[in-house]
Parts: sequence; C-alpha cells; structure tokens
Amino acid sequence: MATRRSTQDVYILGGYQTDFARNWSKESKHVVALMREATLGALEQTRVEPAEIEVAHVGNFAGELYCMQGHLGAFVVDIDPAFRGLPTARHEAACASGSIAALAAEAEIEAGRYDVALVLGVEQMKTVDSKRGGDFLGTAAWYEKEAKGVEFPFPKLFGKLGDEYDRRYGLKDEHLARISAINYENAKLNPNAQTRSWFMSYDHACSTGQYNAKIGGRIKLTDCSQVTDGAAAIILASAEFAERWAKRMGVALDRIPKVLGWGHRTAPIEFSAKTAQSHGMQYVLPHTRKAITDAYERAGLSGPEQLSAIETHDCFTTSEYMAIDHFGLTAPGESWKAVEQGVIEIGGKCPINPSGGLIGAGHPVGATGTRQLLDAALQVSGQAGDYQVDGAKRVATLNIGGSGTTSVVHIVGTA
Amino acid sequence: MATRRSTQDVYILGGYQTDFARNWSKESKHVVALMREATLGALEQTRVEPAEIEVAHVGNFAGELYCMQGHLGAFVVDIDPAFRGLPTARHEAACASGSIAALAAEAEIEAGRYDVALVLGVEQMKTVDSKRGGDFLGTAAWYEKEAKGVEFPFPKLFGKLGDEYDRRYGLKDEHLARISAINYENAKLNPNAQTRSWFMSYDHACSTGQYNAKIGGRIKLTDCSQVTDGAAAIILASAEFAERWAKRMGVALDRIPKVLGWGHRTAPIEFSAKTAQSHGMQYVLPHTRKAITDAYERAGLSGPEQLSAIETHDCFTTSEYMAIDHFGLTAPGESWKAVEQGVIEIGGKCPINPSGGLIGAGHPVGATGTRQLLDAALQVSGQAGDYQVDGAKRVATLNIGGSGTTSVVHIVGTA
Repeated sequence: MATRRSTQDVYILGGYQTDFARNWSKESKHVVALMREATLGALEQTRVEPAEIEVAHVGNFAGELYCMQGHLGAFVVDIDPAFRGLPTARHEAACASGSIAALAAEAEIEAGRYDVALVLGVEQMKTVDSKRGGDFLGTAAWYEKEAKGVEFPFPKLFGKLGDEYDRRYGLKDEHLARISAINYENAKLNPNAQTRSWFMSYDHACSTGQYNAKIGGRIKLTDCSQVTDGAAAIILASAEFAERWAKRMGVALDRIPKVLGWGHRTAPIEFSAKTAQSHGMQYVLPHTRKAITDAYERAGLSGPEQLSAIETHDCFTTSEYMAIDHFGLTAPGESWKAVEQGVIEIGGKCPINPSGGLIGAGHPVGATGTRQLLDAALQVSGQAGDYQVDGAKRVATLNIGGSGTTSVVHIVGTA
Repeated sequence: MATRRSTQDVYILGGYQTDFARNWSKESKHVVALMREATLGALEQTRVEPAEIEVAHVGNFAGELYCMQGHLGAFVVDIDPAFRGLPTARHEAACASGSIAALAAEAEIEAGRYDVALVLGVEQMKTVDSKRGGDFLGTAAWYEKEAKGVEFPFPKLFGKLGDEYDRRYGLKDEHLARISAINYENAKLNPNAQTRSWFMSYDHACSTGQYNAKIGGRIKLTDCSQVTDGAAAIILASAEFAERWAKRMGVALDRIPKVLGWGHRTAPIEFSAKTAQSHGMQYVLPHTRKAITDAYERAGLSGPEQLSAIETHDCFTTSEYMAIDHFGLTAPGESWKAVEQGVIEIGGKCPINPSGGLIGAGHPVGATGTRQLLDAALQVSGQAGDYQVDGAKRVATLNIGGSGTTSVVHIVGTA
C-alpha cells in the first residue's frame, strides 16, 4: 500500500491538560470530573463555543478495570447542555489510545463528516494500588502469556527491549540514566508535570539499591514513568472552520498548528514475537520505524533534520532510547551518541520531551497521546511557556501501545 | 450542524459470522480464536487477499472484563503473515461498539486514507457466570449510579423504557411477547442464530412464572436477548477497489452493497436523564430518532417506506418496540399497530430482524453492530438464504449502546 497524503488539512486549535500531579481518587472524584475539566478547559483556551463542537472522540485504555466504567465517550454529552445528541465514541489501543482517538477524529474531518472535533484522552489510575494497577496494565500485552501472575509485567517487557539493544549493539545503563535525568529536568519547567517538585538527578538515576530499586530486569525505579491520573483535550478543525476561527481570534491561518503527517502501524502483540521478527534487521522495532517513515513521507519531510523537537513515548527509558535511532537521529544502535552529544536536551539539535515526557510529566495512559499532540501544538505556536523550544516549527509525537505493539506518529507544524 | 452526505462511496464486499450458539470458553478457546475465525472467514467469503487489507478496526465492548484482555485491535496482525504492520485499533461504545468500529473505518476510506478495511466485532461473554456478566454489562450504563449492587441492571433499565411508553401512550405486554416470538421464529431460519433450536412460542412469551421469570420490572426471560460468544467481520472498500473487485468476481458494481447513509447520536448516559429530557416530546428517545432521520437524510430517503427491512437492536423487546415508531413505521406511541398488522414479519411491509435479531440470533455485545451490517449486506445482495427478504434493496440497521445512549444507524443498499 502506498502512503497517501491527506487531501484535507486538519488543524489543532489548542487544548487543555489537567495537572498530572493530582490524585483524583483522593479528591473523591469520578473519572467524569477529569473529562469535564479537560473539555471545559479546552473550550476556554480556544474560545470555541460548545455548540460548535460536532463530534467527540475519547481515548481511554481501561476505564472498565480502573474505574469499572465503560462507554466513556457518552459521558461527554453531560458536560455542556449544547452537547446534547453529540456523536461520541471511545477508542483504545492500550497506551496509544489517545492517538488512536485523534486518528479517528482526523479521518472524519478529512472525510468532510464534521468540521470540529473534541479529542479527549483520559485515565484515572490511582483508584487501585500499584500491584493491581500493574496487573491491569498487563492487559495491554498478551495477558495470558506475558502478564498473568507476573508482578509488574511492563517494566520487565521494556527491560527486555534494553536487553535486545544490548545484544545487538551494546547498551550502557548510564545512557538510560541520562535520559531519565533529562526528562525529570525538563518536567521542572512544566507546571502540569507530575514530577515537577520531585528530587531526581543523574547520579540518583545511576544508583541502584534501596532508593532506586530494580523493578524488572535492568529497569530501575528512575527508568519508569509513574502511575497518575490525568486528561488532555485538543480541538481539531477543518481548514474551513480554522479559517473562520483564525479571523475571529485575530491570528493568521498559517500560525495555527496542523497535522502535517501521521503514521500508524501494529507489531505482533507478544514481545518475543517482535524481536524474533526483527532478528537480523537494523531496527529493533521495524513497525515503529515504519510508522515514523510513513509520517515523514506524508508530511513531505526528508527526515529528523526537519524536526524542531520530538514528544516521544518514554514509558521507560528504553523506549526513548529506541525512539532516538528509530526517528533517525542516529544510525541504528547508536542512540547513545545523541544522548552524549546533548542532541536531545532543550537547546540541543532535536530536543526530546521538552515537556518532561511520560517519565517527567506523567503517564495517565489514555491521556498521553492527546497530551503529546497538545504539547506539539503549543510548541509550534510558541505557547509552551518555560519549556518552549525556541523557534519550533515542526514537532513529532510517537505514542506506543503495549510493548511496542501499536505505534502512532504525528508531525505537527505550522504551514 | 447540517447533515452532510459523504463524497466517497463505501462498499461492503461481504463478511462472515461465527455460529452464535457456540460457547468458546467451553471449547477452551481464547477470544483471539473468535477473531481469527471471523477474519479468515470474511477473507474466504469475499476472496479478498490478506495482503489487500490495509487497516483493521475492532469493535469490542469489554474484553478487559470478560477476558482480562485489552488492546484487541493488535491481535489481528497475528492472524495472517500478510497482516504484519497493519494499522489496527479497537473502538467502543458499549453494545454499539461494532457500529462505532464501522464508522471509523468508513471515515478513513472516505478520507482516502485506505482503500480496504477489515471491520471485526467480537465479544466472548461466557467466560463468567450470568450474575457477574450482568455486573460487567452495568459498565455500559453509569455504573456507580445505575448498576452497582443491582442484579441484572440492564433488564431493569429497558423495563423502564417499556414503563415510559406505558405512561405516555399505553403498552400491552402481549405486543412485546409478539416481538419476542417473531424474533425466535426468524432465528429458526438462520443457521448462525443462537436460539435456532430453542423452543419458544407466542403463548410461552405471554406466560409469566417458573418457566418465564421476570428479570427486571416488566421484562421477562423471553423479552431478553441472551448472553453468548460471537464475532462478525465485514470487509469495507472504496469505490476504486470495489470496481476492481467487482470485475475480478464477475459481478456488476451496482450489485455490491454500499453504505447509503448513516446517523450517530448520543443521549445522556443515565436513563432517568433521557426520559427527563424527552418529557413532553413525541419520541421517547429523541436522539435515537435523530440518528435515524440523519441516516434517511444522508441516504436521500424520504422515510421508512423506502426500506426493504430493518435489523434493529432488540436487546430487549422494549427496544424493538421503540425502534418501530422511531423509524417512522407508525406514529409515535403506535408501534403496536405495526406488530398487530404483521408489518414487521418476514413477508410484511417492513420486516424487522429477519435474522432473528439480538433476541433470536444472539447478542455477543461487540459483534452485534457488524453482524447487523453483514446481514444488511447479505439481504440487499440476495444472499441471506432462508431468511432472505424478497427483493430487498435497502436495509437499515440500528445499533444501540447503553440504555439508548449511543445510537448508530446505517442504511445499506445497492445503487
């Protein structure tokens, strides 16, 4: 199948992220409260009227497990009286659910079904203890084969990703520690980041022991993104609506972020099947690589040298390590070079996760994809505040479901 | 928002339904086995090559609860080696999940993102006993408010739908019994129907007591669709691909079923909020009515007189009773007239559920929407076998999530 570019532009008018440091269960709040705050926040930020929203797409991983609540799309209609009758849906691909919801909304706008869509990623995870939550996360993998009866299956799976790099190319844990430290450092600049007030340093990330325990294989506590509650909403629009909106807001249309390209690929769900399939290949996760090159192709980009920054899926340090070479910032297996040379730091050639990413900003699973898209839009419109990448024009996102199973890439830019 | 007709035709090349009488847990089979049989069956039926499938959309309500497995979209890639890297996603709106998956696939084809999509609805429900399964179904409603601690919440909610009709217009249970009997009767003609060999009669449906217990309010056992396991897959295609496929199959393009129109609306999730909102209105579920009239408008139809048949969501007899007047087969509140006059029987003016519907054919939740679309396509292409409606040209489907919360309507026809 040839990678086709879309015929219709899809704009990101703006959005809203909840404070990922909050624990909504402790506040005795239902998941709908998260949805409400993000939705009303996005409307207020963009000054889009509730009656202008024509459809709502919700990204959520496992509300049935964490909150004993399915059918989350439907909860949107209760948020504002103008939403009565609004078409709604929930979309899921584990930790890539937010991006999957965005893809569905974009397709509808490109098809001319609707002009304005609310895309809302949400997950309330602090309803259960970390062991039980870890078991729930196991349903993003092949539960029966990879997670049942396994304590914290996902750190172990992403530990294996590191091991695979080690086997093929060599991998030093100090480079993973540096990735962690950069994400924590960036998060201090982000007023919505979960870890913004936490102590963390490169030295701490290098240590192992009581204060930085191994969670699964080579993955230590500082290599992990942390469980949290959160929601992030963005408002997508057709060119027709964006033009009217730009006039009303007094901004030029070419200053409004839009989706320049996207990629969407799925690898076998079992981690061992993934590495067996990529045996002897350059890229450890070739389908993730393909999602990235599909996005470059659709956006008409030659490669990462045309990106200003990347918001990637660092559920663990190993997945960011993988993203570095898969995006083409280095040759395959040489991600450590970009880490050592400061390429991925704010101020570097291609900052990764200026927001703090999943490790620093937090990873409320279903919200991550929309949070990444929101951050990409904020960056390219110069609204990212203290974590702004100077002069950002094009920002890529990579959102991953399972152990590298579903990969969704977006490239967001202005004109 | 104006209801826009699509600019690109979406064709239904065919598909496959598993035998809804099977209990896959008793066969010691994982949910992926259901997905595999439906997918391979759809490929075989349509003679579409696995390598021609460009994207897969899975409709599933609550795999996380029934099967402790999320991320079901990803399981498709393991079904055939040609599926490696295939973009996949799972979509959910409770019992309307199958139709929500279809809407997502249609939008992508209309947008020109892909030419050929696999849409697969699936639910394995016999993994748990009926009480626990009833509790899981409660997550399709507002669980905390309407289902927590309630035994079999959904019969009670749809009993209230009957009560609301009774209050507004009067409702005789004998008409509900007739609806049940017709569905069971039709199911005997359907080789994949769950109840095809069960004894049921109008007299039995009228009785109350040991052999036809009340489950919730006025809802008796014979008013209910039954829990089962099942999957149904359809293959959707763009006009460009359908034209090539028609040539290769030696059929005329205008004999291939296509989506003529669709509607998608959401009512408040709580049942009491729905009836409060429709107080004093003609239609008890005005958003369901709107989904139907949106579909008529998009299909360019004046009303139900242009329909050959309807496959509707009779999770309970009351929801089919509601569908009769909401589709406009009678004036509001007069559905009983269509029941008495034989309008909805095979051979009647507008047969409803020639397949047996959810009550007769079975209701594996996530599969129902795609099963309805498959049956609609089989009808309009004259391939419905013993339950064929003579000369069917246009068949509508109504798929409902929750207590009338998400409504998705499709109108499928030839040319």
